[in-house]
Amino acid sequence: MKITIINGANLNLLGTREPEIYGNISFEKYFEKLKNRFKNIEFLYFQSNIEGEIVNFIQQASKNSDGIIINAGGYSYTSVVIADAIKAIQKPCIEVHISNVFSREKERHISLISKYVNGSIIGLGLDGYRLAVEYFCNLTV
Amino acid sequence: MKITIINGANLNLLGTREPEIYGNISFEKYFEKLKNRFKNIEFLYFQSNIEGEIVNFIQQASKNSDGIIINAGGYSYTSVVIADAIKAIQKPCIEVHISNVFSREKERHISLISKYVNGSIIGLGLDGYRLAVEYFCNLTV
Amino acid sequence: MKITIINGANLNLLGTREPEIYGNISFEKYFEKLKNRFKNIEFLYFQSNIEGEIVNFIQQASKNSDGIIINAGGYSYTSVVIADAIKAIQKPCIEVHISNVFSREKERHISLISKYVNGSIIGLGLDGYRLAVEYFCNLTV
Amino acid sequence: MKITIINGANLNLLGTREPEIYGNISFEKYFEKLKNRFKNIEFLYFQSNIEGEIVNFIQQASKNSDGIIINAGGYSYTSVVIADAIKAIQKPCIEVHISNVFSREKERHISLISKYVNGSIIGLGLDGYRLAVEYFCNLTV
Amino acid sequence: MKITIINGANLNLLGTREPEIYGNISFEKYFEKLKNRFKNIEFLYFQSNIEGEIVNFIQQASKNSDGIIINAGGYSYTSVVIADAIKAIQKPCIEVHISNVFSREKERHISLISKYVNGSIIGLGLDGYRLAVEYFCNLTV
Amino acid sequence: MKITIINGANLNLLGTREPEIYGNISFEKYFEKLKNRFKNIEFLYFQSNIEGEIVNFIQQASKNSDGIIINAGGYSYTSVVIADAIKAIQKPCIEVHISNVFSREKERHISLISKYVNGSIIGLGLDGYRLAVEYFCNLTV
Amino acid sequence: MKITIINGANLNLLGTREPEIYGNISFEKYFEKLKNRFKNIEFLYFQSNIEGEIVNFIQQASKNSDGIIINAGGYSYTSVVIADAIKAIQKPCIEVHISNVFSREKERHISLISKYVNGSIIGLGLDGYRLAVEYFCNLTV
Amino acid sequence: MKITIINGANLNLLGTREPEIYGNISFEKYFEKLKNRFKNIEFLYFQSNIEGEIVNFIQQASKNSDGIIINAGGYSYTSVVIADAIKAIQKPCIEVHISNVFSREKERHISLISKYVNGSIIGLGLDGYRLAVEYFCNLTV
Amino acid sequence: MKITIINGANLNLLGTREPEIYGNISFEKYFEKLKNRFKNIEFLYFQSNIEGEIVNFIQQASKNSDGIIINAGGYSYTSVVIADAIKAIQKPCIEVHISNVFSREKERHISLISKYVNGSIIGLGLDGYRLAVEYFCNLTV
Amino acid sequence: MKITIINGANLNLLGTREPEIYGNISFEKYFEKLKNRFKNIEFLYFQSNIEGEIVNFIQQASKNSDGIIINAGGYSYTSVVIADAIKAIQKPCIEVHISNVFSREKERHISLISKYVNGSIIGLGLDGYRLAVEYFCNLTV
Amino acid sequence: MKITIINGANLNLLGTREPEIYGNISFEKYFEKLKNRFKNIEFLYFQSNIEGEIVNFIQQASKNSDGIIINAGGYSYTSVVIADAIKAIQKPCIEVHISNVFSREKERHISLISKYVNGSIIGLGLDGYRLAVEYFCNLTV
Amino acid sequence: MKITIINGANLNLLGTREPEIYGNISFEKYFEKLKNRFKNIEFLYFQSNIEGEIVNFIQQASKNSDGIIINAGGYSYTSVVIADAIKAIQKPCIEVHISNVFSREKERHISLISKYVNGSIIGLGLDGYRLAVEYFCNLTV
Repeated sequence: MKITIINGANLNLLGTREPEIYGNISFEKYFEKLKNRFKNIEFLYFQSNIEGEIVNFIQQASKNSDGIIINAGGYSYTSVVIADAIKAIQKPCIEVHISNVFSREKERHISLISKYVNGSIIGLGLDGYRLAVEYFCNLTV
Repeated sequence: MKITIINGANLNLLGTREPEIYGNISFEKYFEKLKNRFKNIEFLYFQSNIEGEIVNFIQQASKNSDGIIINAGGYSYTSVVIADAIKAIQKPCIEVHISNVFSREKERHISLISKYVNGSIIGLGLDGYRLAVEYFCNLTV
Repeated sequence: MKITIINGANLNLLGTREPEIYGNISFEKYFEKLKNRFKNIEFLYFQSNIEGEIVNFIQQASKNSDGIIINAGGYSYTSVVIADAIKAIQKPCIEVHISNVFSREKERHISLISKYVNGSIIGLGLDGYRLAVEYFCNLTV
Repeated sequence: MKITIINGANLNLLGTREPEIYGNISFEKYFEKLKNRFKNIEFLYFQSNIEGEIVNFIQQASKNSDGIIINAGGYSYTSVVIADAIKAIQKPCIEVHISNVFSREKERHISLISKYVNGSIIGLGLDGYRLAVEYFCNLTV
Repeated sequence: MKITIINGANLNLLGTREPEIYGNISFEKYFEKLKNRFKNIEFLYFQSNIEGEIVNFIQQASKNSDGIIINAGGYSYTSVVIADAIKAIQKPCIEVHISNVFSREKERHISLISKYVNGSIIGLGLDGYRLAVEYFCNLTV
Repeated sequence: MKITIINGANLNLLGTREPEIYGNISFEKYFEKLKNRFKNIEFLYFQSNIEGEIVNFIQQASKNSDGIIINAGGYSYTSVVIADAIKAIQKPCIEVHISNVFSREKERHISLISKYVNGSIIGLGLDGYRLAVEYFCNLTV
Repeated sequence: MKITIINGANLNLLGTREPEIYGNISFEKYFEKLKNRFKNIEFLYFQSNIEGEIVNFIQQASKNSDGIIINAGGYSYTSVVIADAIKAIQKPCIEVHISNVFSREKERHISLISKYVNGSIIGLGLDGYRLAVEYFCNLTV
Repeated sequence: MKITIINGANLNLLGTREPEIYGNISFEKYFEKLKNRFKNIEFLYFQSNIEGEIVNFIQQASKNSDGIIINAGGYSYTSVVIADAIKAIQKPCIEVHISNVFSREKERHISLISKYVNGSIIGLGLDGYRLAVEYFCNLTV
Repeated sequence: MKITIINGANLNLLGTREPEIYGNISFEKYFEKLKNRFKNIEFLYFQSNIEGEIVNFIQQASKNSDGIIINAGGYSYTSVVIADAIKAIQKPCIEVHISNVFSREKERHISLISKYVNGSIIGLGLDGYRLAVEYFCNLTV
Repeated sequence: MKITIINGANLNLLGTREPEIYGNISFEKYFEKLKNRFKNIEFLYFQSNIEGEIVNFIQQASKNSDGIIINAGGYSYTSVVIADAIKAIQKPCIEVHISNVFSREKERHISLISKYVNGSIIGLGLDGYRLAVEYFCNLTV
Repeated sequence: MKITIINGANLNLLGTREPEIYGNISFEKYFEKLKNRFKNIEFLYFQSNIEGEIVNFIQQASKNSDGIIINAGGYSYTSVVIADAIKAIQKPCIEVHISNVFSREKERHISLISKYVNGSIIGLGLDGYRLAVEYFCNLTV
Repeated sequence: MKITIINGANLNLLGTREPEIYGNISFEKYFEKLKNRFKNIEFLYFQSNIEGEIVNFIQQASKNSDGIIINAGGYSYTSVVIADAIKAIQKPCIEVHISNVFSREKERHISLISKYVNGSIIGLGLDGYRLAVEYFCNLTV
């Protein structure tokens, strides 16, 4: 199984950015752990701060992934084009948010992407990525 | 570890109610599988269509559970008192929704409970309950 | 033919509560007349001030009624769970309101239940229940 | 007893217009049946696509009718002047909508006319006109 | 000087319609008095319940009037086309409302026509028409 | 007959302030003309930029005036207390606005005072004050 | 004099629930003090987490109380049916809120019940119940 | 091919009305040019200021036209009944607006008709009618 | 103990202004009774119709009062500066409203001051001032 | 004549993306046809999924184009900066949308770009690009 | 050069009021420093808690100032009349806010005055007044 | 001291774009002057039309700047990710807008970035950049 993880804007700062909200380990470190845990899964990882590059990547990723995990960061709340890209491709997709967006500012409550994905995992920290992988594993069982 | 699962209004109809949205196996059957999968966890299960009984149960459950999984059904969108009860107790709690509420009617997008729980798992079917349990397991590691 | 009538909160006060709005005969008296008028119909009647009990009753009533007449009282404007129950069952249903809700406070204009019933009869006093029965009679002709 | 029925815009298309919503018999045919059913009632019928002609007719109809049944069609949601005419005259009036407006687009939920009529019968198909007549019959008893 | 007075929907009922709001003399009687008071002014009067006829008349009236006094009745709050017609012609125009619309329902507070007229006289009863004429007289001085 | 005219904030600048909106003669000059035209009327005039002083004056003016003409300027749109004062006294009152507020910024469309006065004269320039006096004259006839 | 005190959802947790907001003594202890202070008053006390039970109790309490003190907790902001019950009975009623709801989340600012009670005492802690009793005492003097 | 062009309120003033917005040639002149350009097309033209007459015409036009071009003028923004008529018939339809409504007042941004037509051509002046014809020509190719 | 009472705009009219809402005794008379009832309390009283004078007085009163009771009248709903003054000083403060603002116009439901005071007493007539004093007395016990 | 066509986000997927909405031929194929049809026009074509690249291109294209045709895709509804770029340059511009946005989700109804272009062609499929070219051709005649 | 500084409500408390927001030096002390720094500028300073006095002062200051610096405090968000006064005079004006209003309560985000001044300096503490002076100095260069 | 200036979308057009709003000198020219005026400050300058590149640059600039001056142009009103980046870094930051956004379209009134910067300088033309530098200079004194 091939799973693609896409992180959006400012998520390259994980570990240093507002650690009281986002925790203090970088995504790179976390990703190592994740790969260790699911050794029979082939992971593809992409991060960009540029909205259109994420669109480009989603279009490509759709061709050779069995599942996509996306956390578009701040673009979640403003990007119609990322949402459109997710809708346009035909692959199972899960949205992850590290923090509990519902206990934060109102403008972070509703991601434009959410309605086009299979489901969302919100507020469970970096562990949300792991649970998304678990979901995909179960699907194939 | 003791985990309490609380299902709210109309979830006793799972398996027969709008199967194109909620699937066609009853929660009882699913619960059997769940208990089989996590044999070292002690589960407590409660379902009620009465808002105040759910409040009563949350108050009690908080005393002898390590984690609470709640799907308040239609009460999610109207019940300040269930949200208040979740807020009042001091136990880790995860909210689960079976269907992807963000692709349904607007009035089902924001649960009043969400801001007081640790996190939410939305749209991943009954598997959402399993993932919530996985999350609690990981916490204790 | 079996018809179930369900009255919600505060409708047990009919006849004494704000008679300038709701008239001054109790539902019990009216119900006697109704049963006399439609002798070949088997009526089932339920009233409760508790939202979840109404949900419970709808779930049961759905099994052995040919038609349901519901006036959820004040719950009409707040109860997603009663609306969900009506939607979940597969029986013809008519909503009745005794007073003309459109000439009252704005928050009483739209019942959450309305969109899931066959139709509504509003503002025609207790006679609305009779007309609802007439409708069911005609259906079977 | 004299009863006036007023149909508004596009209701002359009944039977051919969107039959999945409005059914497939014309009002003329239905009206024949209605007159047969209530032979001791004198009916007056008027249909127009022109808002102001409906106002004119309401003003006249008020003089020699015991009751008015109005379905203003699309004008229900935009016409202050038809609502004003209903309010200005002093005759009992019932509003009928053939389809269940509450399960359609939001802008069809609230008729401007509703607050000035005695009551409304909504979503019960052409049978709504019959029930309105039944209501007037009962009043005179 | 030629002054045109245009009355809209339901104003033909003046004197009988809701006299506690609109007074109890008909416009015809009032108009007689007005003509007597301003004998050197040539008056043209038009009333219609049909929106488009009012548009037609405004287009014609613009050609041979020095001033227009319009009370569009209920169309004031819904008619973009009457407002467009007033805007399209190039004649001084005053809007009159008999009742104090600001102490009535909110939807009668803002006339769509108001922004295109010279000014408005509101709530001063039928005397508002007289004051409008006075205004035009003063202009020519 | 005694008539009181009350002008609110910044109306002491009339004649110099934004003359394309408010004209270019001062209220003092206009007032002279007005007094000449209505010689048998006793006028009282008050202008203040201080909201509470206007309230004080309304309370006093109410005791020895037959009619009040008020143009509260910018306070019209923010002052609940001036509106309360107008409502508290029991004297006929007309609100005047020099410019056509309906063709200006939206926040100037609805004066808080309007619903408590007899009526309003809007957009007819300084002549609005004259027409208001005419209205009071006619009342006493 | 007989006074009934009704506490709604989650108020059975007083003393332990969010003590920084609600203080840290239980209602039971406070109630003892209250009864000691007003020995000539007969108190009736009821608490429930179930909305409809509160409606039931209000209907009963209305029969043998001289005054009702109600703090519906979280139901204050969602329960049309409790508000309807208060409106339906004809007894003096005071609403109490322990915390200053106006400095909390916006959705707690307006209780649906408030418009039907005599008055409200908000933010003065448990002492609000005492002041409500004082008010009733003064009434009877 | 038969194409019907329907113009709504105030469009009979084209050429004289606000020429800086709508240009200064009349529709009659433009229509001559159009007919010359497309000699093999049979055109039917209708203009009315009366909403209901437009509804009547749409109902008739639907029977013997291959395509309808409609510019309802000010009715575009208020007429549910014209929109309903367009929806009721089953002919291809294009909406034309002469001026760029999106750079005008907000209330002219969304035509109620737009969602029921094939498409819209907005802001391209009278040439919009020509392009609409071009579109129909291409369809038949 | 020193308690300051501040009354805002139009409260100098108490006893004569809209007595069906505000009762018919003046504040001066009521104040005499109050002083008699609490002889060991030193009262300071201030009333003004001028917003800024109330701000000035709050700033001064804060220096030598143990508690402040404020009823800002109509300024409650518009005055950010009075609210700011209350927030800026560091003295216990109670807001009183004589009438039940929640059963009046919507714009009187939320006072801008409320979130900065300890609590509010609303709708209990002039007795609200007495209860506020009672509250301060209890505090010192 | 030189015409520039700019396509925004996800329009590189045309032909494969949601063909029931966008049709099933790619823009490249359509573009070939277009160039064949208008052989005397020099076309420049640009597509990007990156918002800022579109801004860059608009700035450059403005220098050597006689007309611009833009379909910004999903950026139409979110991009102030593309709208600003269109506004900043001084070239005729037409906005094209392939699908009828007015019959889709509400958030796709109003493009931020629309108010700065000459006009819009909406819902006429790929043929909208051809009609836009026709418009430019006519301009130069 | 003559510069006038106007401070509005509660700014006389600077240094003691909420020092975590507004700092802890009084405006008087700051003003001394400012005058020392710009010795060739003639400063005029005015502070009032009374809205109308600020209007009066603006009207006067406009006559003999080269520039006005205004911080209306809480009146910024409610005072149409101060905004009108700024608009009415014809002198350069800068608005200063000491705290960053955009990170405070929403109702402090938009000053009614802002649109009529040359520009605003927000959130830079008392130094904002100095920068405003710098701006005026640069203008004269 | 090192100061970084970041300009967003379309600001590379300064001097040619809408000169009546933005003036007619390019930023490059202005920047030369600025560097001459503050010779002891090391400036870093960056402009991009691509949202994500600005995010990238903010992340880098944060490492070796003492202060950041940002004018994100049109992105100010739509970019959550630029605002997030400003919030994530820990350097003093000032937002500059050249034009007075408060007197322009409503959608330009509130920048998403504003709440995370130290303060804003708005409407003072290019001189706003100079004043921002002055502010940083003063900080270090």
